[in-house]
Amino acid sequence: MQLATLDLDEGTVAALRTDEGFRPIEGFADVGALLGSGPDWRATAQAAMAADAIAHDAAAVLRPILDPGAVVCVGVNFRAHIREMGVDLPDHPTLFSKLPRALTDPDAVIPLPAAAPGCVDYEGELAVIVGAGGRDIAPADAWDAVAGLSAANDVSIRDVQMRSTQWFAGKTWERSTPIGPTVVTLDEVGDIDTLELRVRVNGDLRQHGSLGDLIFGIPDLVADISRIVTLHPGDIILTGTPSGVAYAMSPPAYLRDDDVVEVSIDRVGTLSNTFRAASLAIAGEETRA
Amino acid sequence: MQLATLDLDEGTVAALRTDEGFRPIEGFADVGALLGSGPDWRATAQAAMAADAIAHDAAAVLRPILDPGAVVCVGVNFRAHIREMGVDLPDHPTLFSKLPRALTDPDAVIPLPAAAPGCVDYEGELAVIVGAGGRDIAPADAWDAVAGLSAANDVSIRDVQMRSTQWFAGKTWERSTPIGPTVVTLDEVGDIDTLELRVRVNGDLRQHGSLGDLIFGIPDLVADISRIVTLHPGDIILTGTPSGVAYAMSPPAYLRDDDVVEVSIDRVGTLSNTFRAASLAIAGEETRA
Repeated sequence: MQLATLDLDEGTVAALRTDEGFRPIEGFADVGALLGSGPDWRATAQAAMAADAIAHDAAAVLRPILDPGAVVCVGVNFRAHIREMGVDLPDHPTLFSKLPRALTDPDAVIPLPAAAPGCVDYEGELAVIVGAGGRDIAPADAWDAVAGLSAANDVSIRDVQMRSTQWFAGKTWERSTPIGPTVVTLDEVGDIDTLELRVRVNGDLRQHGSLGDLIFGIPDLVADISRIVTLHPGDIILTGTPSGVAYAMSPPAYLRDDDVVEVSIDRVGTLSNTFRAASLAIAGEETRA
Repeated sequence: MQLATLDLDEGTVAALRTDEGFRPIEGFADVGALLGSGPDWRATAQAAMAADAIAHDAAAVLRPILDPGAVVCVGVNFRAHIREMGVDLPDHPTLFSKLPRALTDPDAVIPLPAAAPGCVDYEGELAVIVGAGGRDIAPADAWDAVAGLSAANDVSIRDVQMRSTQWFAGKTWERSTPIGPTVVTLDEVGDIDTLELRVRVNGDLRQHGSLGDLIFGIPDLVADISRIVTLHPGDIILTGTPSGVAYAMSPPAYLRDDDVVEVSIDRVGTLSNTFRAASLAIAGEETRA
């Protein structure tokens, strides 16, 4: 199944994406509410096959989880990216977080912050969407805790990220991190290790990695994070980015006005976002929309 | 005013703390809901003076904001603490975050994680509770964005904090960070720079600092964070800890079974929490309570 959150005139709604269009899952304002409804969420979503389909181009697709309880990110988790950043292979996952308000929609126009316009970077990542969740989950049980996968762009304001030892400030810029367009359930994705992730800037391939190259795979990450805190339905884990970020280029090819960044993951989906030079005031308008 | 969140038989409720007892502010499940109700929250709270008082010892006092949208923490922000950690004075605030589920109640018994029991540390801190909030707030306007202050203990699982460059994992352990007992509004606190903060472990003074020793004061922090993201009502900013943490002692005097940690800030309040050796299963029970 592919699950989406739509912005309709009457409000937002979770929906099943089918070849014929989006079928609303009535009673759930987003995919997060659906996943939080309990273990029958799959059956609830399937029942929407009886609903009329909304044409794919007739609905605005939002980020699938409008207000997740947690966005936990993993740094330095691709072998090749670690080499380009010049650090050693880690013994433990490097975890940090974004505020939920850092997320934005899969086709959003993303303002280059007026306060820090010249250092905006892309990081294409596989996003794990938690389903049942839980605490102290063993790696062998981790897949049962996960609902599905999305694509994400862990947009990073490098000057702000690197101004102290802690990356959070540069990773949580308001409405800078697109995610979606759907949550693809695990049964539909198949073998994660064969998925390839590509990031193109204005059509030029910048990042290309295999999800089989993750140092800490999804079961390890779910086990590690759930040892620390309970994972809840709709929580999001960003699993790390492969090599090829602008920061590591010489000179860094940071994003500029009108650049289009596409994050594409096999069988999971494609994000396409235009970056736009904007004053902070204009950025504020965008984020209220 | 002093605002609290109470756990009553019929549910949780925001309350005004007066000498006679707690006066419920009906219609608001916690102080966060009150602050989110708009600019009239002060008048709404004052109107509760007409309500009957619940005796101070007849109600369980919870953390004032049950589920904040953001918990932003500031590291290395006291001049003396920076010296004990052996790092240089910073040019920018060092920001990281906790998940809201890392917070717990002002008198909670806090389990020492079975998975990491020997490295649990205290960090007494002043907590800023956002009122109006906003984006791109100038330092001169910052006080208008703040509702009041609380005490907090930024409990840190040092082995987990230090396993990578990013502190988040060791700072966000489930229900490990007590905050409260009330939100004291700014008008009642007076000059922040004269406030002194003390942390005692089993009665022994371990930390003692003046809030005048903050490198980045509250106006600077509100301005810096609101440049990055919009601050919302009920958001929490932990402003950093003074010298005297266990980590910096030789050998480190980490917390042990039955230790009582008291964080006390002049005119703001006192937290007192017992730490208890516990299996992860027991910790899970505590956090559901």
